[in-house]
Amino acid sequence: MAGNNDRFVNQIADINTDYTKWYTDVCLKSELCDYGPVKGTMVFRPYGYAIWENIQAEADKRFKAQGVSNAYFPMLIPQSFLMREAEHVEGFAPEVATVTHVGDVELAEKLVLRPTSETIIGNMYSKWIGSYRDLPLKLNQWANVVRWEKTTRPFLRTSEFLWQEGHTAFATAEEANADALTMLGVYREIANDVLALPVLTGQKSEKEKFAGAVATYGMEAMMKDGKSLQAGTTHYLGENFAKAFDIKFLDKDGTHKYAYQASWGISTRLIGAIIMAHGDERGLCLPPPVAPIQAVVIPIGAAKNPAVADKAKSIYEGLVKANVRAHIDERDCSPGFKFNHWELRGVPIRIELGARDLEAGVVTVCRRDNGEKFTAAIDDIASKTPDLLDTITKSMYDKADAFTKAHIVRADNLDDMQAALDGGNFVDAYWCGDRECEDKVKQLYSASTRVFNQDQSDVHKHTCVCCGKKAKKRIYFARAY
Amino acid sequence: MAGNNDRFVNQIADINTDYTKWYTDVCLKSELCDYGPVKGTMVFRPYGYAIWENIQAEADKRFKAQGVSNAYFPMLIPQSFLMREAEHVEGFAPEVATVTHVGDVELAEKLVLRPTSETIIGNMYSKWIGSYRDLPLKLNQWANVVRWEKTTRPFLRTSEFLWQEGHTAFATAEEANADALTMLGVYREIANDVLALPVLTGQKSEKEKFAGAVATYGMEAMMKDGKSLQAGTTHYLGENFAKAFDIKFLDKDGTHKYAYQASWGISTRLIGAIIMAHGDERGLCLPPPVAPIQAVVIPIGAAKNPAVADKAKSIYEGLVKANVRAHIDERDCSPGFKFNHWELRGVPIRIELGARDLEAGVVTVCRRDNGEKFTAAIDDIASKTPDLLDTITKSMYDKADAFTKAHIVRADNLDDMQAALDGGNFVDAYWCGDRECEDKVKQLYSASTRVFNQDQSDVHKHTCVCCGKKAKKRIYFARAY
Repeated sequence: MAGNNDRFVNQIADINTDYTKWYTDVCLKSELCDYGPVKGTMVFRPYGYAIWENIQAEADKRFKAQGVSNAYFPMLIPQSFLMREAEHVEGFAPEVATVTHVGDVELAEKLVLRPTSETIIGNMYSKWIGSYRDLPLKLNQWANVVRWEKTTRPFLRTSEFLWQEGHTAFATAEEANADALTMLGVYREIANDVLALPVLTGQKSEKEKFAGAVATYGMEAMMKDGKSLQAGTTHYLGENFAKAFDIKFLDKDGTHKYAYQASWGISTRLIGAIIMAHGDERGLCLPPPVAPIQAVVIPIGAAKNPAVADKAKSIYEGLVKANVRAHIDERDCSPGFKFNHWELRGVPIRIELGARDLEAGVVTVCRRDNGEKFTAAIDDIASKTPDLLDTITKSMYDKADAFTKAHIVRADNLDDMQAALDGGNFVDAYWCGDRECEDKVKQLYSASTRVFNQDQSDVHKHTCVCCGKKAKKRIYFARAY
Repeated sequence: MAGNNDRFVNQIADINTDYTKWYTDVCLKSELCDYGPVKGTMVFRPYGYAIWENIQAEADKRFKAQGVSNAYFPMLIPQSFLMREAEHVEGFAPEVATVTHVGDVELAEKLVLRPTSETIIGNMYSKWIGSYRDLPLKLNQWANVVRWEKTTRPFLRTSEFLWQEGHTAFATAEEANADALTMLGVYREIANDVLALPVLTGQKSEKEKFAGAVATYGMEAMMKDGKSLQAGTTHYLGENFAKAFDIKFLDKDGTHKYAYQASWGISTRLIGAIIMAHGDERGLCLPPPVAPIQAVVIPIGAAKNPAVADKAKSIYEGLVKANVRAHIDERDCSPGFKFNHWELRGVPIRIELGARDLEAGVVTVCRRDNGEKFTAAIDDIASKTPDLLDTITKSMYDKADAFTKAHIVRADNLDDMQAALDGGNFVDAYWCGDRECEDKVKQLYSASTRVFNQDQSDVHKHTCVCCGKKAKKRIYFARAY
């Protein structure tokens, strides 16, 4: 498609024929990020980091509204901590980076760079929690974590990434499990309202759960190639880490009990989700709540027309005053170049002002999400832009939601499943609950179970999509990032 | 002093007789932080982390006003990068932590955990900077860094700490050096206006400069024991890192030139500075701009008097509405316990409401910084608190400034210097400029040069405080954290 448009100078691969290269092109050419010098690492450039700052601000206020406080725990964890929870070490050991030396001196105990912080936080909680009065304890940290992945892609899978990890402790199992579900709801709200991203939420299978959890809940978002991106997970940890780290409290009844815990995280992966769920043949398409620039003002022919330059400036200032993250592009280059520049970067609203517009007292407004163009009175544009941004967010959500719904296909046997997956769909299926069937589907079609369907009402009427035995769960299968 | 006050239940060491233990007690008992499981590491507990969040917000907006953008660079740096700048590797090599393995697999190249990021950012800048049009480039990152220190203390010196590091590149030496000085000014403003902290600013000696810099500028704050705390530094790097990482640009004149750079950082050390510059025998005393809780409302006898409980609640709500970070202490324990609890935690304003106050339509207001108590009309308290917070900030600054000024002593010979240092003072002295004299003073009195005096006008009239040779610089000596 790019070839159809002669002002499309920042060539990116065609989204329809090479989605993988399109993704990388968009990441690099819109200057969201760059590759770091060490294989598998990435640099968050200002435009990409600003998206993360906006996600952080939106998430942080929602966490605080849930009574969560921020804290910060050391990144370096004694290797022995990881060993204490059997499943946990099995899950993470192969990908942890280990510090063995300081200067020329070998350390007495090897330290690992946190892949996640259940262990070190468990260690501190055992110190801080003594009585039921100390519960619930709800902390979160914004941090970098290191997981050495073999195959890496910007934002989606890198050796180091940025995230938040919430760690909570309660007196009862019910409260801890409820927290995992509450936070899943908070994540869903962030996905829907902030990222304009529809998600499927639900519990994950034993195979797909977090190493060390009793239950893992996830939210899955559909990318434009029909693959799933795990966009956030919450875990009910039961007493697993409490037993490993001796987190005990004296309860009201005078007995000592282990605390029940939950943990939950979202990461810079969400930026990858935004790119792949909303992007198009012109590049990035950013949801207004996280767009570093929500509206760009482009004066046309301003060099020869100071009145245009002045009015454009005052429009820009009006937008800033209306709390719009606005930018004015006063560079000395062609309008076409600028249009392309900001389209590639996914700025939600473009506001053009030329000599004829000025005469008529109007601007030309162009929406990035659907290409809609219309004129608006210069005097109204600042006051109307915030509403327009909301409209765009909703409209982006609706579009992605319709796409997702159109690409969920029921399948009752493996042939239908394969056809659905190859056609770029999620598969809505029934499953016997056995790991063997998950493994077989993975091996045959590179697809995995994602989350249980919210509707489990008619499971008893169905058989497993893979082995034909009695079904125990209705679940989504998909290829996943 | 603590013994004089029978409601002083959270015993902390006497600030006058054991400043070191007082500091640790305040850190731990006000729940700012805790020790991590690995020696030399610390945990930022919510109350301490909230101070850092407030410092971050205040600093971040000032950086952005200077045209700086945030970005994020990988924490893991190839060991070879450190080697490229000779002074840099010499300065940092002994304290860098090195990652050698991932899981059981040895890495082909050893990676170090960033002690600072000039090298990896230099590597990226060489990729991004090609033309004079790419300059200036002004990026900052908020990050964790690792420097393995032998002697550690919470906030002041820990293996891992949190900071921001700005890295800028310019076409000319003048601009880069000017940036280092501009940012020193921004740091001074943050110290003065946000932390109520007077600072001495100026260039540092060759011995004390950053490893790899052409010139280092610092701000030094006086603690209550007369020792200095380096509270922030900015560096003019010249072409040092540009040459090491090949950061070249095509200038307007058609020739290729190395870029000139600056870097600058402040860290969680600032929390240590706040504790030690403002704290007293009752514990922490927080400057209002960074206090997580600026005003605490304490209902007295509320259990027996619902009208007091209700009014206290409405006062609290009024404060929140007036954008005061307020808290209401509705716990079922004695007023004395609560007073002590919040004094230890340094909350700037305490607002008490008892039955008699309620009848009279007043509250009792108590300032943490100077103990001043007065009554105020209930109806006015919300609207007057923001001004009172400003007054407290100014008053805390003035008090610390007077203390600092009273503890700077001129010395013209080593005996006078020793007496001044032993008396808990900074020494204002003249110096020949030779490293030998710095080393001698260090060895004799454990004091070092801090920054050049802003006034160098009469240096030619003086001789070196140490060797008696002709003076080249007027400089401050002090014992330092």
